[in-house]
Amino acid sequence: MSELTRFGVSLEKSILEKFDRLIRRQGYSSRSEAFKDLIRQKLVEREWEEDREVVGVVSMVFNHHQRGLQDRLTELEHHHFTQVIATQHIHLDDDNCLEAAIVRGKPARIRSLAERIQSLRGLKHCSLVTTTTGRGIV
Amino acid sequence: MSELTRFGVSLEKSILEKFDRLIRRQGYSSRSEAFKDLIRQKLVEREWEEDREVVGVVSMVFNHHQRGLQDRLTELEHHHFTQVIATQHIHLDDDNCLEAAIVRGKPARIRSLAERIQSLRGLKHCSLVTTTTGRGIV
Amino acid sequence: MSELTRFGVSLEKSILEKFDRLIRRQGYSSRSEAFKDLIRQKLVEREWEEDREVVGVVSMVFNHHQRGLQDRLTELEHHHFTQVIATQHIHLDDDNCLEAAIVRGKPARIRSLAERIQSLRGLKHCSLVTTTTGRGIV
Amino acid sequence: MSELTRFGVSLEKSILEKFDRLIRRQGYSSRSEAFKDLIRQKLVEREWEEDREVVGVVSMVFNHHQRGLQDRLTELEHHHFTQVIATQHIHLDDDNCLEAAIVRGKPARIRSLAERIQSLRGLKHCSLVTTTTGRGIV
Repeated sequence: MSELTRFGVSLEKSILEKFDRLIRRQGYSSRSEAFKDLIRQKLVEREWEEDREVVGVVSMVFNHHQRGLQDRLTELEHHHFTQVIATQHIHLDDDNCLEAAIVRGKPARIRSLAERIQSLRGLKHCSLVTTTTGRGIV
Repeated sequence: MSELTRFGVSLEKSILEKFDRLIRRQGYSSRSEAFKDLIRQKLVEREWEEDREVVGVVSMVFNHHQRGLQDRLTELEHHHFTQVIATQHIHLDDDNCLEAAIVRGKPARIRSLAERIQSLRGLKHCSLVTTTTGRGIV
Repeated sequence: MSELTRFGVSLEKSILEKFDRLIRRQGYSSRSEAFKDLIRQKLVEREWEEDREVVGVVSMVFNHHQRGLQDRLTELEHHHFTQVIATQHIHLDDDNCLEAAIVRGKPARIRSLAERIQSLRGLKHCSLVTTTTGRGIV
Repeated sequence: MSELTRFGVSLEKSILEKFDRLIRRQGYSSRSEAFKDLIRQKLVEREWEEDREVVGVVSMVFNHHQRGLQDRLTELEHHHFTQVIATQHIHLDDDNCLEAAIVRGKPARIRSLAERIQSLRGLKHCSLVTTTTGRGIV
């Protein structure tokens, strides 16, 4: 359990009121919690710039009738099995599915895996979420 | 099956050579496939601007020892059960887990759900992937 | 002059130390100043989502030997003269120049102006900075 | 003058029709021009990843009554005079101004300059446009 510390912040009243309105609407229970989130976001951004181990979620949308695509996808994921931890498959409609793969590794390798997936013929859309192992983030 | 059409594109040789080098490195098997991907990305961006039904993946990293967090998360997801289609849970280490929720709905509602999740006390990081139902995209 | 207010924030020591290291490297003179910047960034992002009057900078890179381009650019800027406040022109080398146009108006109109500029034949690159009139931001 | 080359692209009719509608709305005069822009955007993104010489526009919004800010800004810009090529200053209202600085150099140095500017006390908002010298882009 990390030790708590308390410190003072000085801000113009007018900007603090706007911030309070914004975070209330977003659902925050306290100002400290909102500040902490702003900090965490900056720290996770840094992790991706600094070649530390990070976590990502690669989402892929494709037509499962597309011949051979799923095989090539599975092969690619297995080839990168040290990075791909798990995948989840959803049927969006008769034709379309979404697969979400949770990956872990160095930023450059994860980005390159996402690029290779995107270049597979027949894949409709591929996106990468950049998140964290949580290790350095309280 | 959508009908194929073939058309000509005129480009400066020097820029085409750079593009060819770039897409070869990314793994594309043909120039047409790479162009198609550029188009699809633009079209999916538009879907998120135009209030059409879209698909997202919300990733959350948190310490599962955080008291009550997982309950509040599950409750929030159930409250939005028409949007949340499925979730997957991964153990990153002794303390940290990642949950990836696949959500479907109007862009504004999905963004607001992601904001509410992010504001939960104890959640370390929350990100949203913006992707597509695949319906309008070949 | 806006009134200052002072309040307490509670954070885990470990995350605060990381934040302090980060902002020292970026050049901040105080923690309050860094928090204020995080808040301002959120508020300016909101301004662009909420259809309020905002300010942008449109940058354009082009070859000034490109026949007719500069005329079409000037014409477009004048057509939107209520939005375009001023432009600055820089010679990057014998062929290339950069023009930076400061624009003001509703987000949708500014984005559409930037799109129209980008679609001009011969323009090499067009980007839009999304910033603020400063009015609501202390 | 770069040599033109003509090549064929095969695409599903349905996606091409959507693309044509999109680019017509954006103002493109031809499909080739729109494809070229998509390529240029990718190439400029790469330039910023590959540590090549690039160009940026740093926009700063601040209250010019803020004591000492403009001096510190000018000093910082002069300290980086090899990067800052020119600046333009606009009066947004009685209090607020926008300064747009055109900068040139390696991506890391430009980003670090933008960070240092942002950390100046009293600066309301600082953004960075990432563009190109135009040299490698036809």
